[in-house]
Amino acid sequence: MAVGYKGLPDLAPVPGLRLGTTSAGIKKPGRRDLVVIEIAEGGTVAAVFTRNAFCAAPVTVAKEHLHQASPRYFLINTGNANAGTGEPGIADAKDCCAALAERVACATHEILPFSTGVIGEPLPVGKIVSAVPEAYGALSENGWADAAQGILTTDTVPKGASRQFEVGGRRVTVTGIAKGSGMIRPDMATMLAFVAMDAAVDRELLQTLLAAAVKTSFNRVTVDGDTSTNDACMLVATGRSGVEITADSGYEALAEAVTGVCEELAQLIIRDGEGATKFITVEVAGGASEDECEQVAYTIAHSPLVKTAFFASDPNWGRILAAVGRSGIADLQLEKVSIFLGDVCVVRAGGRAADYEEAKGQAVMDEDEILIRVELARGDASVRVWTCDLSHEYVRINAEYRT
Amino acid sequence: MAVGYKGLPDLAPVPGLRLGTTSAGIKKPGRRDLVVIEIAEGGTVAAVFTRNAFCAAPVTVAKEHLHQASPRYFLINTGNANAGTGEPGIADAKDCCAALAERVACATHEILPFSTGVIGEPLPVGKIVSAVPEAYGALSENGWADAAQGILTTDTVPKGASRQFEVGGRRVTVTGIAKGSGMIRPDMATMLAFVAMDAAVDRELLQTLLAAAVKTSFNRVTVDGDTSTNDACMLVATGRSGVEITADSGYEALAEAVTGVCEELAQLIIRDGEGATKFITVEVAGGASEDECEQVAYTIAHSPLVKTAFFASDPNWGRILAAVGRSGIADLQLEKVSIFLGDVCVVRAGGRAADYEEAKGQAVMDEDEILIRVELARGDASVRVWTCDLSHEYVRINAEYRT
Repeated sequence: MAVGYKGLPDLAPVPGLRLGTTSAGIKKPGRRDLVVIEIAEGGTVAAVFTRNAFCAAPVTVAKEHLHQASPRYFLINTGNANAGTGEPGIADAKDCCAALAERVACATHEILPFSTGVIGEPLPVGKIVSAVPEAYGALSENGWADAAQGILTTDTVPKGASRQFEVGGRRVTVTGIAKGSGMIRPDMATMLAFVAMDAAVDRELLQTLLAAAVKTSFNRVTVDGDTSTNDACMLVATGRSGVEITADSGYEALAEAVTGVCEELAQLIIRDGEGATKFITVEVAGGASEDECEQVAYTIAHSPLVKTAFFASDPNWGRILAAVGRSGIADLQLEKVSIFLGDVCVVRAGGRAADYEEAKGQAVMDEDEILIRVELARGDASVRVWTCDLSHEYVRINAEYRT
Repeated sequence: MAVGYKGLPDLAPVPGLRLGTTSAGIKKPGRRDLVVIEIAEGGTVAAVFTRNAFCAAPVTVAKEHLHQASPRYFLINTGNANAGTGEPGIADAKDCCAALAERVACATHEILPFSTGVIGEPLPVGKIVSAVPEAYGALSENGWADAAQGILTTDTVPKGASRQFEVGGRRVTVTGIAKGSGMIRPDMATMLAFVAMDAAVDRELLQTLLAAAVKTSFNRVTVDGDTSTNDACMLVATGRSGVEITADSGYEALAEAVTGVCEELAQLIIRDGEGATKFITVEVAGGASEDECEQVAYTIAHSPLVKTAFFASDPNWGRILAAVGRSGIADLQLEKVSIFLGDVCVVRAGGRAADYEEAKGQAVMDEDEILIRVELARGDASVRVWTCDLSHEYVRINAEYRT
């Protein structure tokens, strides 16, 4: 069970957006694995995708279609990533879009495909095409919870978040869902996330908003340092609340809501990280730049030795110190570095803090949610990154994934 | 048991070098944990150390002493790394050197200290000082095998290698030992390695030789991507064979022998990697530069997803392809990339090779020793990196290390 997971919250419908979920039997019979999302006419869409050079066929097709028209539908399957499938994979992704286009009488390029699952196996186009009408028939503004379930792969829990705020006395709703559990080191996007609002936002501003929100949410989490071939994060504005957001009007409240939803979803991905037993926040402060703070934070968050120590609830701060030391920061003055576990100072002036007692560190490590704080004393920049521990279960899940 | 380990080979004595090993009871009573190495007067020494900014106290002291004089003794303990111990750690390392200096009547700065083991705990100076006379009393030119045992920590097997060659009808011997099993991602040095020869080589040329040998051996292996605070590799030339090597005379034969010993030791560290069940060679060819080949090779070698697939003997080439894709090579043309498992081409033109059959990939993965070859088709550079898989045992060892 995901660390600190409190169940799927109520996901407020977003007028102008409907979701339909069904089972196409892609990997396992009876499992919900196909989702259609419909955007009412006039909505705007912003997108960020993986920067893995081997992006999957659906990512290539989605980018191409986004270039041609404002999307009306998303077609999402799990169980097969349609990645490493070459030219036939591109054709397969387009065939699936075409099947939905025929059913709803729109152009194929008004549909964006998304796939997640095993890499390197041909997409079972027949199964998907056959199930499209049923997914379409299930479309509903109340379809968020089913869709949150329908996009999962190795995830153990569905992930969603919802915020509401008011602009000029009118309510705006922002709701999103995400999936992701392993191969998580998003680079400009997460595995898959779909966030929508009923405010009206022009496409350019929407893209700015998404980029800013992703920077401090999906781009600040890591399970295993592996960036997926299929990452995508979509942000939709339907405009149906009648509220128009511009750079000068309502933008800050909207940015807060969207960033809040994205951070909550990103953290849910870590809480449900493959084999996770601990939810770890790595905060690096006092850096000369955000870049160097990130470098230190990710060196800690990717260290298998740090991650196994957390799994063991072992306050082995020497491994954290060694990770800081090898993170490649030029001219790092170790005699200025401090490290905290929660509120407990374990390292001061580059060595064990004089007043540190192992029992205090142990008490912090026994918790499910742990904060590591590193102070570099070089400047004012800081970042926060979220990660999880490395457990037997991570190895089991990933050793047995295809069997 | 280490993958493909065939037992400690005969380690030919190096005239002019004696080794003595004893038990100081540092971590566990009765375990051999203290080694003294004596270099006969007139020998030369080259060294490379960790580039982790948090280098351990013995590394700081060893560098300082190297600067002052040509070393006569190495004093090595396991069970405690004397790292993250601040100023008191420096004093502790010097106190141990002083104890040996007094026994052998040389200057403290003619002794280099080396420590390996737990980070962040005070060095038990008293135990070490008490045991120094016994280690000194055990000094012998035949002490290599005992010393190979005496420097181990989580290693399961002792590691040594030996080569001989002739120059002008006279035999030169090169023998070395190393330890290392986890926290292995050496950066200019491995955990601990001591290599000696009986040729005479001036210090500058010896340092050039060591740097070149380390580049393609200890700096090309990784268990978990974690660079230790204590890495050190020492190369000693005693000159007792009467053979003098210069840049123009005998250098190539010597470089081949030293590089051969270093590569064998480096590979032994991987074969004995924590929890290793597979010995993996990652070869990246056709790169525009060695740097980019290394970048791709290490991205593969550090990927937890690739490593768990190897543990499962699963020919999950999609994970290798995804690692190549996220390795950050500018302008990588995926349609030119090929990937081989052993002799089996699994990826051609960026997608599954048309003639690939899973059974062929499975047969390669079932072996204990596996070659991954990636061809980038961008240039003529190539590198080879050695790594191991990520198993349940790795997690167990590192979760339980301090308990």
